Amino acid sequence: MSKKVGVLLSGCGVFDGTEIHESVLTLLFLDKVGAEVICTAPDMNQLHVINHMTQEVMDEKRNVLIESARIARGNVLDLKTLGANDMDAIIIPGGFGAAKNLSDFALKGPECEVHSQVKRILAEMLKAKKPIGAICISPAMVTKALADVHPEVTIGIDTGTAAAIETMGGKHLSCKVADIIEDSSNKIVTTPAYMLGPGIKDVAVGIEKLVNKVLDLVN
Amino acid sequence: MSKKVGVLLSGCGVFDGTEIHESVLTLLFLDKVGAEVICTAPDMNQLHVINHMTQEVMDEKRNVLIESARIARGNVLDLKTLGANDMDAIIIPGGFGAAKNLSDFALKGPECEVHSQVKRILAEMLKAKKPIGAICISPAMVTKALADVHPEVTIGIDTGTAAAIETMGGKHLSCKVADIIEDSSNKIVTTPAYMLGPGIKDVAVGIEKLVNKVLDLVN
Repeated sequence: MSKKVGVLLSGCGVFDGTEIHESVLTLLFLDKVGAEVICTAPDMNQLHVINHMTQEVMDEKRNVLIESARIARGNVLDLKTLGANDMDAIIIPGGFGAAKNLSDFALKGPECEVHSQVKRILAEMLKAKKPIGAICISPAMVTKALADVHPEVTIGIDTGTAAAIETMGGKHLSCKVADIIEDSSNKIVTTPAYMLGPGIKDVAVGIEKLVNKVLDLVN
Repeated sequence: MSKKVGVLLSGCGVFDGTEIHESVLTLLFLDKVGAEVICTAPDMNQLHVINHMTQEVMDEKRNVLIESARIARGNVLDLKTLGANDMDAIIIPGGFGAAKNLSDFALKGPECEVHSQVKRILAEMLKAKKPIGAICISPAMVTKALADVHPEVTIGIDTGTAAAIETMGGKHLSCKVADIIEDSSNKIVTTPAYMLGPGIKDVAVGIEKLVNKVLDLVN
């Protein structure tokens, strides 16, 4: 039977939602190993909408779940309808959506809050000993959500974000873009992706390793 | 010296813009072989904005160039600023954007018109004997733009679209998702991608072949 993997999206675009390349690469490598994918996102407004050419805020409102459906080609479920029983593992691509929508880490740093539904699903996965993969900036949000178990994660080499992760109760390990960090006791796997880049072929290497490790950790 | 390849986008999302998976896979395979990518799109309003969960039209306006920047992580140029001298080849991913924004093929079928800037760049590439790659539904638009030279293309096996291509002056050849069709006299390479699917790993095979063939055809 194929393994079911949730992919938690946060919109559609690196500056206000999910990083598109990271999410598509995650879907590609999951499909390559025959996993069944369940794309999901919270039903909420984005913090804001960014013009990705100018990086300026646009006078618009967009919904995280509806915009995430662009990456999922329509097949996306409201996060509140899903529990740990529905999946064997969960992977969270990066992009500012993880730090602006799934949490407010981009605004508040270590004092951030994680969206209640995101916090719930992560806690359920941890309790069920089901693996969690987090890419790019998402490990910061995961650390806050699961601070009690002191996740060991990476976001690459960015010292400011690394310090914030330690402040939130996590342990940060430096990591190259082609590598992953595995917290085996908590079954949390992380990779820096576009926190380091530089290009899509480089982030693809780390994301493929992350996908394969996450699936290895499924009981 | 690395080859420069234009990637012509048409928005961000399969139902009203560029198909996201196809465009990201194009960027991945171009990066893997060391090509320099120039993402571009016309500066125009999308025909409409589609809610990708419900497929209903939303009461919004979005700009093709600005939305395309989401896929390009900000690095996208207005098509009108580029000519065939700026690139060695051009690739056009699919998605309804090719049939709603780059042309109105989705509305008018064989009677469609191609956006003036798109028609111009394709004519320039043809004249300069520089290769054109077209994915998914894009070959229909390319056929209309270059009808005078009777392009040999594929959109897979869809009989209605195939008939429309023949009506517009092209020749349609059936093709599997893992394969490509090469019109060697016009240097046009096409692959069905999500016109056939079924999944991202399947369309990735054809897109990788298309990217490699397009680069082979660069003088």
